[in-house]
Formats: sequence, structure tokens, C-alpha cells
Amino acid sequence: MDGAARELKTVWLEGGAVRMIDQRALPFDLKLLELRDVEDVARAIESMAVRGAPAIGAAAAYALALAEIRGTDLGRAAARLRRTRPTGQDLFAAIDRVLRDVAEGKSAREAAEAYAREDEERCRAIGRHGRRLVKEGMRILTHCNAGALATVDVGTVMAPLRAARAAGVSFSVYVSETRPRLQGSRLTAWELQQEGIDHAIVVDGAAGLLLQRGEVDLVLVGADRIAANGDTANKIGTYPKAVLAKAHGVPFYVAAPMTTVDFGARTGRAIPIEERPEDEVLTVAGVLVAPKGSRARNFAFDITPARLITGFITDLGILKAADLRTRRPGRAPKRR
Amino acid sequence: MDGAARELKTVWLEGGAVRMIDQRALPFDLKLLELRDVEDVARAIESMAVRGAPAIGAAAAYALALAEIRGTDLGRAAARLRRTRPTGQDLFAAIDRVLRDVAEGKSAREAAEAYAREDEERCRAIGRHGRRLVKEGMRILTHCNAGALATVDVGTVMAPLRAARAAGVSFSVYVSETRPRLQGSRLTAWELQQEGIDHAIVVDGAAGLLLQRGEVDLVLVGADRIAANGDTANKIGTYPKAVLAKAHGVPFYVAAPMTTVDFGARTGRAIPIEERPEDEVLTVAGVLVAPKGSRARNFAFDITPARLITGFITDLGILKAADLRTRRPGRAPKRR
Repeated sequence: MDGAARELKTVWLEGGAVRMIDQRALPFDLKLLELRDVEDVARAIESMAVRGAPAIGAAAAYALALAEIRGTDLGRAAARLRRTRPTGQDLFAAIDRVLRDVAEGKSAREAAEAYAREDEERCRAIGRHGRRLVKEGMRILTHCNAGALATVDVGTVMAPLRAARAAGVSFSVYVSETRPRLQGSRLTAWELQQEGIDHAIVVDGAAGLLLQRGEVDLVLVGADRIAANGDTANKIGTYPKAVLAKAHGVPFYVAAPMTTVDFGARTGRAIPIEERPEDEVLTVAGVLVAPKGSRARNFAFDITPARLITGFITDLGILKAADLRTRRPGRAPKRR
Repeated sequence: MDGAARELKTVWLEGGAVRMIDQRALPFDLKLLELRDVEDVARAIESMAVRGAPAIGAAAAYALALAEIRGTDLGRAAARLRRTRPTGQDLFAAIDRVLRDVAEGKSAREAAEAYAREDEERCRAIGRHGRRLVKEGMRILTHCNAGALATVDVGTVMAPLRAARAAGVSFSVYVSETRPRLQGSRLTAWELQQEGIDHAIVVDGAAGLLLQRGEVDLVLVGADRIAANGDTANKIGTYPKAVLAKAHGVPFYVAAPMTTVDFGARTGRAIPIEERPEDEVLTVAGVLVAPKGSRARNFAFDITPARLITGFITDLGILKAADLRTRRPGRAPKRR
């Protein structure tokens, strides 16, 4: 299964269908989904069969290609896809990009393939830029999954880790399990295992003790949406790690492609936080873990203020929060 | 089951056996254990059938009574019990207390019964002192279980909540689920439900967002060991909440009896942190949630520095960290 998984992209278009790894079944089953219409892809996004902001973006782009193939209205398809999940920015960036390309005469399929190919290139660029942050012997704390499974391939956080590993750097990773859906223990640990990277899973509450004991040299997380000022929405439990990293003087980096930056959101306050079904908290692996009748609140993301973020590892280089605005597409770059 | 549970203590001595609620089976089964020798009690403590620093103390005290009943050596029994769990202070306080009473001519049984009775009284005093902190409409965040199940009865954190509720104060509680063993969702939610107190379970990572949004007015946690300077060991995930509470200007209180204070530990650095089996992290409700071959680290506690703690709700009143030393037993109280 491991070998097979390494050959696969997270999501792709083939034989008139969107294909994807069903991430709900990992790490125990490598199940592939074959989705033949937009509604199926929308539901796959909603149910988190595909998750991770860049991967969701690519899935939505391919869904528009599917709409084109089936001759359904692109505008309606786009509207349906936009309603799937509110927080991740790449979903909206990808849809806008495909619709723009189509307006300019490309086919949706060409546009989607280009988007996916560029997503992979952006991840490789993140790897090249971020590699130098990963030093011999480092102990790195991460949260959720920002690996190949969160993108079309390669990953965001995982890109510098892969690149450093390929360069012979030896380091270890603390994987925060990431309740409620355990993307850390289910997905990140699985990817690290495949790469042969030393790692240990910890509960989300353990970040405090690890930092307190000086056992973390670097915190590295992905992003679902970055506001123009650098405030960053990422998986619930990210913000506490940023506050702790600051308190202990440990650098805290966000790895994300520029497609995750929402230049329309001035600050993190403009980013909507998704609230998901409470049964994700009340159950684990389908087993009820709370008394019947107790309710839960299930916020999927939190906002890490820009001032707590040491830097952004992007496809355009490692940027400070203040640099992000200057890289807005269509904006003339500053003269130096 | 609910009615039945309310009649029970967490741990007691009856018919020559230590009886206890098996907390591993809650909230789904109310299973009672009947333990007839010291080794069985020691294993019940190790496996967390009984947990919560004060409840562990009472279980150990009763185990010494059991040793006496069975005519086994008290010193050896005490040594075995001391090896069960390293962090919680009440275990050691209870054993010392029973051995001292025995040395003074009491029976171990009398000493254990007195210890348990006093534990309950200490909790009621915590409730009387802490009640005024719980105000109408407040939203309180707690972590792990510091309820009746963590003590002989009544609870530490739960004592002021019960007292406020009985006085007609209306408030709500965010229950941090508390991975890996989910004492929040399994035990605290269950106790709150029985008391008719409004509550919502959240994942441990959600504390940041809740505080960020101004949805928490008070953080209230228990303690496993408090150093003489006020540094406090409590369930893993407590320290991040204290850092966040400070960052957002929300009061952070620790509710604990004075038996939890270790005057022999000058600071938190002297408190040993238990590391438990990794399968508690790698599985949930018996179901493996991580890839085979991935390892975990399972630290059971972290240390919250005294400077982050607004106050200690103790059986002697609400104290500041600096006040703790002055209440050391056998020390003449300061003249005022």
C-alpha cells in the first residue's frame, strides 16, 4: 500500500472522473474515489474525503472540468462548490482562476490541469525555500496535516521536510494528533513514516510541556487562509502553539502557497471560521466517547495573529507578514 | 444509572474490600470494583480505574486499611502504593498520614476513614470559598475531571460549580475533552449532566479560539501537585490554557485541597512528570488511530508556573501563590 500511495496524486482527473484518495479511510485503507459529477465532488469536500486548502482548491478546479465535460452550467457548479467549506482560501482562488481562464477562451479542463500542475510547482518551491530552516538534529513540532495529502502532491510543511531529508539532514518531528479528525496521527504520521522521518505522535495538549522542556526547536504549520496582514487561519489548535512558541522563544513558521493568501481580507477578523458537526467531537473512529445528551462545539479553525508568526514559507520565498501585500498578484513589485 | 451514581462515593471501604467506581467504563457503564488486596488497589491506580489526585490518595489510604485487615506488612504495602503513579501529591500525603496515625496508635482503618471523610470536607470548603467566583451568565472553561470522581465525593473544581448552581446561579461550562483518556468528555460532561449544568464539549485545541473570541470568562482547573511556590502540575494541556488565559486577560484559578501542596518541592522543576504507555495516544476507545509502526510520547501532566495562576481555591480559602507557604501544616500562622 505504501508504494502504491507514493505513486498517486491526492486528486486528479482521469477517464471523465475526478479521482482522489479517500482520506477518511487512511492510514488503514487506501481507498480511491471516482466522482462523476460536481455534486459528488462537493460532498467529498464537505465530508473531508479530500481536505487541506490546496487539495480542496484542486478538487474544485477539477470539478469545474467535470461540469464542462458533462455540459452542465459552470456558474452553477462554481456556486455549489463555493458553498462546501467557508474557511480555506484556495477553494475560492482555484474556482476564480478556472472561471477566468475559461472567460479567456481556455477549456476548464486545461485550466484545472494547469492549476494542479502549478500547485505542485508551488509546493516544490516552498520546499526549496524552506529547506534551509530545517537543521541537523532539530526537533520540529507540527499540527494537522500539511503534507502531500493536503495538496496535489509534495505538501507545504512536508515540502521543506522532504527536501531536507533528501539533502541528508537528520531531524525529528513531534506530530500533534489534531483532534477531532486526527489528521496528525492518521495522515502526517503516515507520510513521515513513508519518508523514513523520525517522529512521535503527541496529544494536542502536549505542546506546552514540550516547549517548556526545551524539546522543540521549530514549529511548522500550514494554513487554510492568510489575511493580507498575515493573520493566519489554520486547523483548530494552531493558535495555542503560536502563543506557546512565542512564550518560549521558538520560531513559528507558516508554510503555504501564495494562493492561500486572501488579499481581500484585511485581517484575520474577516476570515469566517467553519463550525462542523458536533459528532466529530463526540465520537472517535465511529465510537461515542461522551455521555448521551452532552453537546459539543466543533470549530474547525483558529486564527494566529501575524505578530506571532516568524515567517511565511511561500513559493515566492520566505516572507515576513509585511511582505505579503507587496506580492499581491497584478501589483507592480516594489523597486529596490 | 445516574441516580445510582449520585448515591455512591468514588472509593470506599466495605466488607473487607476497597470498593470503587471503575472510571474506565464511564460514562457508559457504572461498574463497581471490589478489591481485596493491596496489589489490586495498586493496579487500579496504575490503570486509572481510580484517578484524580485526591481520589488516588483515598484509595491508597484504604489500601493500607486492607493491608491491616489481611495482616500484611504496612511498610511494604506503602512502598508498593508509592510506586503506582509519580506525579499526584495526595497519594504520598495520604500514605504518610495513615502511617503517622498508625504510629500514634490508631488503626489504619480509622485513619483511612478519617482521611476520606476529611477529603470530602475539604472539597465542601473549596465549594464554599470558590462559589463567589462563579457569577451569573459566566462561561467557564475547564480541563480534565476535577469532579466528585477525582475525589472521594463533591470534587474540587466541581465544588464551587455545584455550590453556585445550588445557590441559583446560572452559568455554562466549556469542557475540554482531555486527550488521551478523555476525562473531560467521559467524566466531567457526565457529572455536569447529572447536576443539570449547561455545558459543551470542545477539543483541547479549541481553548485558543474560545479565548480569542472572548467566549471564556474564567478558567478553572484542578491540580495533581502544587509546589511550595505555587507552580502546579495538572493534566497535560493545562499549561497552554494558562498561557492563553493570561494573553487574553482571563482569570485562571486552580481548585485543590491543601493536601495537594508539596511543601518539599520548592518549584515545579522538582515535580516528576509521569510518562504513560504510548497506546493511550495511539488508540481511542480501543481502536488504533495511527499507522502501525508510528510511535507516541505520552506525558500525563504539565507544569503551570505560579505567575500564570490568579489564585488557588483551597479548603483554607482563596490563596495567592505567595500565601501557600504560610499555610504549611505545623507552621505558626502569620500574625495579622
